[in-house]
Amino acid sequence: MATSILRSSLRLSSNTRNATVYFRSMSSQRDIDPSRLEFHPIATPKPLPEVSKLKFGHTFTDHMLTIPWAQESGWGVPKIQPYGPLALDPSCTVLHYAQTIFEGMKAYRHDDGRVTLFRPDMNMKRMNTSAKRIALPTFDGTALLELIKQLIRTDKHWIPTAPGHSLYVRPTLIGTQKAIGVGPPNEALLFVILSPVGPYYPDGFKPVSLFGTTEYVRAAPGGTGAYKLGVNYAPGILPQKEAAKQGYAQNLWLHGPEHYLTEVGTMNMFVVFRKENGGLELVTPPLDGMILPGVTRDSVLTLAREHAQGKIALPGLPTGLELTVTERPVKMSEVRDAAKEGRLVELFGSGTAAVISPVDKIGYLGEDILIPTGEDGMGPVSRAVWTELSGRQTGVIESDWSVVIA
Amino acid sequence: MATSILRSSLRLSSNTRNATVYFRSMSSQRDIDPSRLEFHPIATPKPLPEVSKLKFGHTFTDHMLTIPWAQESGWGVPKIQPYGPLALDPSCTVLHYAQTIFEGMKAYRHDDGRVTLFRPDMNMKRMNTSAKRIALPTFDGTALLELIKQLIRTDKHWIPTAPGHSLYVRPTLIGTQKAIGVGPPNEALLFVILSPVGPYYPDGFKPVSLFGTTEYVRAAPGGTGAYKLGVNYAPGILPQKEAAKQGYAQNLWLHGPEHYLTEVGTMNMFVVFRKENGGLELVTPPLDGMILPGVTRDSVLTLAREHAQGKIALPGLPTGLELTVTERPVKMSEVRDAAKEGRLVELFGSGTAAVISPVDKIGYLGEDILIPTGEDGMGPVSRAVWTELSGRQTGVIESDWSVVIA
Repeated sequence: MATSILRSSLRLSSNTRNATVYFRSMSSQRDIDPSRLEFHPIATPKPLPEVSKLKFGHTFTDHMLTIPWAQESGWGVPKIQPYGPLALDPSCTVLHYAQTIFEGMKAYRHDDGRVTLFRPDMNMKRMNTSAKRIALPTFDGTALLELIKQLIRTDKHWIPTAPGHSLYVRPTLIGTQKAIGVGPPNEALLFVILSPVGPYYPDGFKPVSLFGTTEYVRAAPGGTGAYKLGVNYAPGILPQKEAAKQGYAQNLWLHGPEHYLTEVGTMNMFVVFRKENGGLELVTPPLDGMILPGVTRDSVLTLAREHAQGKIALPGLPTGLELTVTERPVKMSEVRDAAKEGRLVELFGSGTAAVISPVDKIGYLGEDILIPTGEDGMGPVSRAVWTELSGRQTGVIESDWSVVIA
Repeated sequence: MATSILRSSLRLSSNTRNATVYFRSMSSQRDIDPSRLEFHPIATPKPLPEVSKLKFGHTFTDHMLTIPWAQESGWGVPKIQPYGPLALDPSCTVLHYAQTIFEGMKAYRHDDGRVTLFRPDMNMKRMNTSAKRIALPTFDGTALLELIKQLIRTDKHWIPTAPGHSLYVRPTLIGTQKAIGVGPPNEALLFVILSPVGPYYPDGFKPVSLFGTTEYVRAAPGGTGAYKLGVNYAPGILPQKEAAKQGYAQNLWLHGPEHYLTEVGTMNMFVVFRKENGGLELVTPPLDGMILPGVTRDSVLTLAREHAQGKIALPGLPTGLELTVTERPVKMSEVRDAAKEGRLVELFGSGTAAVISPVDKIGYLGEDILIPTGEDGMGPVSRAVWTELSGRQTGVIESDWSVVIA
């Protein structure tokens, strides 16, 4: 039997929100409304998994959140219900034309029992940007976040508390029109599933090797690389297999005849050069339409800039070290030359899954560019940024970025 | 109750086929095997639709074909079963990472009761090429075609016989691994659904207008534009909406700073120029990795070349007219200049849905390039090619391209 939860506590705020939405969209379609939430609890909860055996994205909790959308009426009744198969018409849009977007975020359970999300407003904002790009319906991000919080609270005993563990949260929005014409769908489905995950590097940081990829592209000017769409992922699987055959972990997508660094597909890229005066330059490619605006990318940039401006002190970075933070195009030849001349300090990726991922080697035009890493696998900047960032995520360091939800 | 059909008639050929596959792949995984087909008939057949009210891709027949695949065992038991929802785990690959490919073909029912498919071997070949590109399993195309034929035979009373009507056949292959890591899936599902369709232009040919699109791209060098992947479609919906707002029917995707013509997303493009000597040049952009190798494109090229070589005579083309057939890059400026100088004879698209689609206008850099069309909406070459092509498809003209299946 369905139980309406949240209703009393949220009535006021949801009314206010609906009024705002009405004026904004000038439409009678309903937005996502947490006060309509129905809770259908699982009859027999599943046994909790053995934490040491967790494989990323293979285990899911007892419940999921679903919110249907229809062109005529807008967003329908949100339901927290037992995790289980979706019944999708074989003609529906997502199965033929790849109309799907998603987000990835992590919930952490702390020693004192509190549960937090890391900068979830950024994910809600990006999900709306993605929806618009692929002609899927947009929504009130605050309302969706309220429902995601309720889902996480429902299954919070699934969040592993071991160091480095968390609950991966996967909101997805798909076109479900039951017709095989190409166009904006008249039906869609938003769903959120939860997966308990272990640390990306269970035995300490292990640098990865990248294959500088020029034969295939992930994105192009005028394309969809700056949006978190499903279409940016499946085409990368074959190039990834080919890179793996040659002994590299992932593709580093290089753009144009100049071979500009873009990103890794699941991570943004950062390079640290040593300047002539001994200071360091932290560089990442600019958001030029081909690069995903990563939440971790933004966090790394913000922390490094605040350190450079003297607003905070990143742990372990020598005081007096000059740090410059730049978003600018970087060619592979610049990385190669810096490596040869001893000016390349480190190179690392940033993303929700691994947080920070040091790189020790890039295969480029038949040669291996070797990249320095410290004894712990990290370089000086990535180590400092990771310590601060993971401290904020796990609650060791207090921060506005960590949003308490339970 | 499941009934195994086809078994006795196909045992020999399928054994032979399996043996071949064994040697080819050196693996013990099973390929698609028609002799394993199970038939689960619908309990209550649906009423047949009113033919005059058919909307493209909105109506589906009583049955569908499904064939599961698993990494360890290969292709499983094919089933013809009642058309109905697929139960898909919310974590499955296609919903998150757009791992889907499809094909489109048409079955025609002729006055004498025969049912034919048009060059279906081309679709089977292309579907395997697409599967490989996106890390989905490949298969014996002859075996799949055998099963598709059986599905069409099962629902052949659904094929409308009114002029220009047909049964649209949609094979689709999706990744169904129940895990949200990005990689080759360990499970997949191939399914085929059937949709009775009316003529694309029920009231005679109506030329379409195109918007020369430079802000967005459909494909790029090193991308997936040459494969029939779902990922090539959803990103085009927003640009299509924007073109429609300006009064144009579809996007004509232009590539690079030179604005080379590529294709329309659902159609390949042909241009006819008048040469100085009065002869005609039929031009289409080459298969450079950004253009879908359309079956209709290939058919148009083949027919035009055979006419040019004197092997066949396309109906209605003046004898003695010199026709040159070329696959070469075409810039928009060449089309614009030819239009201004009266050397542009016609411009048309080719695809499975519309077969031939004349174009009367292209919006380009703020001006409209007007393209000649005849009184019936077509130009001399497209009219001749369409007459021959649709004659072969509907059985009016005998041809090897038309494969009798019932």
